[in-house]
Amino acid sequence: MSELVSLAQQTRQAARQLGALSASAKNAALEAVASALEAAAPKILAANAADCEIAQKEGLPKPIYNRLKLDETKLYGAIAGVWDVAKLADPVGATHIHRELDRGLVLKRISCPLGVLGVIFEARPDAVIQISSLAIKSGNGAILKGGKEAINSCRAIVAAIHEGLAAASISPDAIGLLTTREEILELLKLDKFVDLIIPRGSNEFVRFVQDNTRIPVLGHADGICHVYVDAAADLAKAIGIVVDAKIQYPAACNAVETLLVHRAIAPQFLPEVTAALQAKNVKLCGDEAARERVEMAAATEDDWSTEYTDLMLSIRVVDSLEAAIEHINTYGSRHTEAIVTEDSQAAETFFSQVDAAGVFQNCSTRFADGFRYGFGAEVGISTQKMPPRGPVGLDGLVTYKYQLVGDGHIVATYAGKDAKSFSHRDLL
Amino acid sequence: MSELVSLAQQTRQAARQLGALSASAKNAALEAVASALEAAAPKILAANAADCEIAQKEGLPKPIYNRLKLDETKLYGAIAGVWDVAKLADPVGATHIHRELDRGLVLKRISCPLGVLGVIFEARPDAVIQISSLAIKSGNGAILKGGKEAINSCRAIVAAIHEGLAAASISPDAIGLLTTREEILELLKLDKFVDLIIPRGSNEFVRFVQDNTRIPVLGHADGICHVYVDAAADLAKAIGIVVDAKIQYPAACNAVETLLVHRAIAPQFLPEVTAALQAKNVKLCGDEAARERVEMAAATEDDWSTEYTDLMLSIRVVDSLEAAIEHINTYGSRHTEAIVTEDSQAAETFFSQVDAAGVFQNCSTRFADGFRYGFGAEVGISTQKMPPRGPVGLDGLVTYKYQLVGDGHIVATYAGKDAKSFSHRDLL
Repeated sequence: MSELVSLAQQTRQAARQLGALSASAKNAALEAVASALEAAAPKILAANAADCEIAQKEGLPKPIYNRLKLDETKLYGAIAGVWDVAKLADPVGATHIHRELDRGLVLKRISCPLGVLGVIFEARPDAVIQISSLAIKSGNGAILKGGKEAINSCRAIVAAIHEGLAAASISPDAIGLLTTREEILELLKLDKFVDLIIPRGSNEFVRFVQDNTRIPVLGHADGICHVYVDAAADLAKAIGIVVDAKIQYPAACNAVETLLVHRAIAPQFLPEVTAALQAKNVKLCGDEAARERVEMAAATEDDWSTEYTDLMLSIRVVDSLEAAIEHINTYGSRHTEAIVTEDSQAAETFFSQVDAAGVFQNCSTRFADGFRYGFGAEVGISTQKMPPRGPVGLDGLVTYKYQLVGDGHIVATYAGKDAKSFSHRDLL
Repeated sequence: MSELVSLAQQTRQAARQLGALSASAKNAALEAVASALEAAAPKILAANAADCEIAQKEGLPKPIYNRLKLDETKLYGAIAGVWDVAKLADPVGATHIHRELDRGLVLKRISCPLGVLGVIFEARPDAVIQISSLAIKSGNGAILKGGKEAINSCRAIVAAIHEGLAAASISPDAIGLLTTREEILELLKLDKFVDLIIPRGSNEFVRFVQDNTRIPVLGHADGICHVYVDAAADLAKAIGIVVDAKIQYPAACNAVETLLVHRAIAPQFLPEVTAALQAKNVKLCGDEAARERVEMAAATEDDWSTEYTDLMLSIRVVDSLEAAIEHINTYGSRHTEAIVTEDSQAAETFFSQVDAAGVFQNCSTRFADGFRYGFGAEVGISTQKMPPRGPVGLDGLVTYKYQLVGDGHIVATYAGKDAKSFSHRDLL
């Protein structure tokens, strides 16, 4: 048996105990973890400084270095997040169904932890703090795999988390840390021990994970979002929305990549919106109809399926609402799609026909986010079709069980010629 | 482009229209389908007779032949099922979240169809009628692949369904039929067009499907269920439950395969329960401790992970509740697990620690079923961990979308130094 399998078994065992705890016991554990992290802050910062020194020597690219670097503000921000998670509602123990099947035979469907989460992330050591607190809150164990550039930071953080758990009389085995790159593939094969994989990293990385595991994956490989400006749009609103959706945080998955413009308003709208975008240094490319109105680079077929994650935007002129929907359903990644229109019938058609986790009218695609939706925490954004879909909060880390309590009831009573009927009376 | 891809695209297109229909329009379609099936009954029975003749010539095994054979009772029963599905609540359009994020910015989470279902089944032609009606009700298209032994029956049934859909002005493309075995693998690769695979057939077949697709699969490969008779069990109830769970329908996935008996009650209970089981022709095997009490075959390690689907039962004596839970979590298939006990503390521990879709106290495992749970229909039983889990009703065929309606709202308003706060006021 490999070391990883035995670690996974220990995590599973510890998770079973954690999953049975009351909300107040889990919150006490989170508070103990937060205190232990505060006490260990100097050690964690020193470990991170060591990681950063190596990273600089090895010439780690600047954006990754920035994510790796943990200053006091970032660390205390992450620890404050643990206290916040303690304040959230317990996702475990919610009763969705409470039904009498017959006298003395009562069914309940109750939310319960998934078991063990496998979390794989690149660089950012503060992610260890966030995901560990979400795992504890939801009664799940977690096996964490951080980037090798963050190894000292991750070890120091996990050591503090273990201290906090132990102080709260919870087995530290509930949170496990992997440290070698080879273990990623092995982790992805542990479908007997790991119930959900949460990858945090580049699109390529998420796709690699999705292609190499039978374990459900919570994540999205691409965020190709559109804003469609309808014939009946308020153009001032449209310009504000397009600019916000592109520049407010262009690296985010919910930023817009392609602007679709109805032909009827293109003559007036295109010069205005492109001027506003170019004033914010957004590079543009467009189809022939767009380039007839405004000078810009020619968009290729590839542009329609590219997530720029940068100050770039492709523009296409469409003949109708239906053509916009067709474009989105062909090239979109089912993430978040917006229509700008004052025509509620057009919005309704868009909402019904566009296949995406989020369909928006007259607002920026950047609102697609667990915190903005009021979930209190965001575990990830999923572009798969089955629930959980879209921004996922703590509820995405639990499943449910059916509990049936009888008093010697057997199925033969309800079968055959003299079958008794079920009452199916809801008690909720 | 292959024929199958073009069929899948047509199904997807038709499904988009079907998914936008009101509940009453879908119910009218179901009634038209039911009428068309009634009108086509003589044709369908004749087509089935042709299939049966070929099957007999080719020496199809008796159990498969029985599933293939469609008499009037079975056919009219299936058609009556279509009328029943029309009466069920519409799973589409339910609002789960209705929340003001800020003035004039309102979020809704609304259930919507998945898109296209891929349904693969062996032999039973009446399954075509059932699954098509569930697909129409939930606003989904379906690509059906029946066994080649049922090809004439399936074609006659699908032709009638198409007539019914056309009579209700719905594109018949919504329900597609595949007829060659080679197409199964091709279908499993269509993750761009098919949103959920529902396999109906043997364990081996379901496992084959799970191993060969990236599309989510609704189904279970094994049903290894246990009854644990605790030290504090009422032995009369225990005997009734064990016998029912084994013999009421031994081929079902929710039948019991292994009986776990607490050592303290083994001397009294084992002779009684084995006598009751043997009176019903159940073959037994047991561990050493069980064989000390009653003569029976020796159970091997393999027996603990075997789904007999027959009048066979393995028996193990355990030292404690914890040992029973450990056995179940090691060998069970996470389907349905029962404890017989009068000790509510023991039941609570069992409910919390056993990892299964169904945890039962003092009742038969055979209750794990969508109809018995009151779902009105059963799409399948899932042993995966993520929802939908356990018996799945119509709700398992829908997902949800987030709809956000604003009035020119942008994220920049809620970010940075002068960030406005969200109200996050629930309107439901």
